[in-house]
Amino acid sequence: MCKACNYTIHAAQHHFGWDNALPPAQRAEPGATILFHCLDSSAGQLGPRSSVADVTALDFGKVNPVSGPIWVEGAEPGDALKITIEGFEPRADAGKGFGWTANIPGFGLLADQFTDPALTLWSYDPATLAPALWGTNARIPLKPFAGTIGVAPAEPGLHSVVPPRRVGGNLDIRDLAAGTTLWLPVEVAGALFSVGDTHAAQGDGEVCGTAIESPMDVTLTLDLVKGANLRGPRFQTPGPVTRHADAAGYDATTGIGPDLMAAARDAVAAMVDLIATREKISPVEAYMLCSVAGDLKISEIVDMPHWVVSFYFPRMVFG
Amino acid sequence: MCKACNYTIHAAQHHFGWDNALPPAQRAEPGATILFHCLDSSAGQLGPRSSVADVTALDFGKVNPVSGPIWVEGAEPGDALKITIEGFEPRADAGKGFGWTANIPGFGLLADQFTDPALTLWSYDPATLAPALWGTNARIPLKPFAGTIGVAPAEPGLHSVVPPRRVGGNLDIRDLAAGTTLWLPVEVAGALFSVGDTHAAQGDGEVCGTAIESPMDVTLTLDLVKGANLRGPRFQTPGPVTRHADAAGYDATTGIGPDLMAAARDAVAAMVDLIATREKISPVEAYMLCSVAGDLKISEIVDMPHWVVSFYFPRMVFG
Repeated sequence: MCKACNYTIHAAQHHFGWDNALPPAQRAEPGATILFHCLDSSAGQLGPRSSVADVTALDFGKVNPVSGPIWVEGAEPGDALKITIEGFEPRADAGKGFGWTANIPGFGLLADQFTDPALTLWSYDPATLAPALWGTNARIPLKPFAGTIGVAPAEPGLHSVVPPRRVGGNLDIRDLAAGTTLWLPVEVAGALFSVGDTHAAQGDGEVCGTAIESPMDVTLTLDLVKGANLRGPRFQTPGPVTRHADAAGYDATTGIGPDLMAAARDAVAAMVDLIATREKISPVEAYMLCSVAGDLKISEIVDMPHWVVSFYFPRMVFG
Repeated sequence: MCKACNYTIHAAQHHFGWDNALPPAQRAEPGATILFHCLDSSAGQLGPRSSVADVTALDFGKVNPVSGPIWVEGAEPGDALKITIEGFEPRADAGKGFGWTANIPGFGLLADQFTDPALTLWSYDPATLAPALWGTNARIPLKPFAGTIGVAPAEPGLHSVVPPRRVGGNLDIRDLAAGTTLWLPVEVAGALFSVGDTHAAQGDGEVCGTAIESPMDVTLTLDLVKGANLRGPRFQTPGPVTRHADAAGYDATTGIGPDLMAAARDAVAAMVDLIATREKISPVEAYMLCSVAGDLKISEIVDMPHWVVSFYFPRMVFG
């Protein structure tokens, strides 16, 4: 519940994909604060009692629902929508937050190496957001954010929710968390803002393709910056972005070469090997832990013709 | 001076490029701690009285000298060289550390957009490492590290120092700083370790092609891990890696699309625009500040067919 909210968008008020012809779920004036009930990215297809068979059975026509859209009064193409991300409240069931992480065949940075489905289920304290336990081995630092946050594109028709665009969408930027301000280019009258795909934790890259996917309530304030003519999303964080995870330092692996994608794959594959060997867990388990906790960074992109991509994994996870 | 060091490698004991036929500057047993006097990456061609004309006149046959090589007794192909990075001491002249940052035509992520040479000179306190002042506008958080650190490759002949390789070299990884442990694959007997290209500050990416280039003394301990069969460099940091820079949060811009390089270029160009406009400085000045202080991250690399690269610039710089 949000005491200061002007409107509430219920979980049933969701849509699949982006389409500027969708009727608004709500019209709101600039400055309005809105509470969005967000489904998880499986739209409830995966739950606390799911098994790996449910990953295989996923209906991809029903993934990544977003709640909305909001018609923002006065928004016009060329404006920026300023989104102040007020906070997240994970959906609690018997006092526990639920999340899932899956390796979905055909999806993820190392899809060629991990061809079988896999599923990890998470239970965490939605009030304290203490690190989520993974068996007795590991604990994952939590920082909730919205994976998908965007406005409708100018091009008519229905557009897949999977790829992010100039107008935002499935950005999966870990730091779109409480306190962050995000600016998005408006391309249609009313902006038509929607949000969903809430994550309890994810590293930069989301390397296996999924985070700790978790239903949550999201509170946002929407404002307009007239005539901003933004080229793409930008954001501002109010403070540090890694202090929930960095206290014990990092293990890091590298990929080096003329192609950033190949270098990223090499760096992640090396970390999967390192973690699986050292912690005596399966490679696919290590891969999923990399996705929810590790960060892909471009260490250098100028020393022709070889670039360095590094993958940083917080030592606190197994510390 | 290093009281606990077994050997000292003087600045004159440097070489240009990697060649496994170079005679060792020193033979050392595993466990030895060594002090390296390192020239800056211009090998002294740029100094506190240099002007932009000296950037144009740079002799590229004399860039990026590395001090060494060290023959490590017992090192064989298939071993890993374990390098404990003990510390950095910037060369002081009248109590001040010196550094330079340049836009070198033809070099850097946005070389097509910044075709004229440019030079920034830095003066900083080498004892406190307080942020370096840029005019009255900005202050750059410092964290010294070695940009180039590596061993000789197996392939015979002289290899350019510019591109990093499986055996390390010009990695330009910002976090190869005091306290970090680095492991490199050994490809030749004795390993033939060298280090140089010391930087007082750099962001992930080193986007304009140079950091705060600064001559320093580096203290390292070299050890062997027999038969490690590493595929490439990996490292471990003893603690957080961004606390010198993150207290005030970040501004971040994004690049979104099917090519990571294009996305990285878009993200950096957007930040150059943002900083130049807001702070009323020239675009090339903003570009050089991005290189010494901002970080390129891969926010997501799985939402087919569009990836998100973000460029994070610490708000403390202009705060």
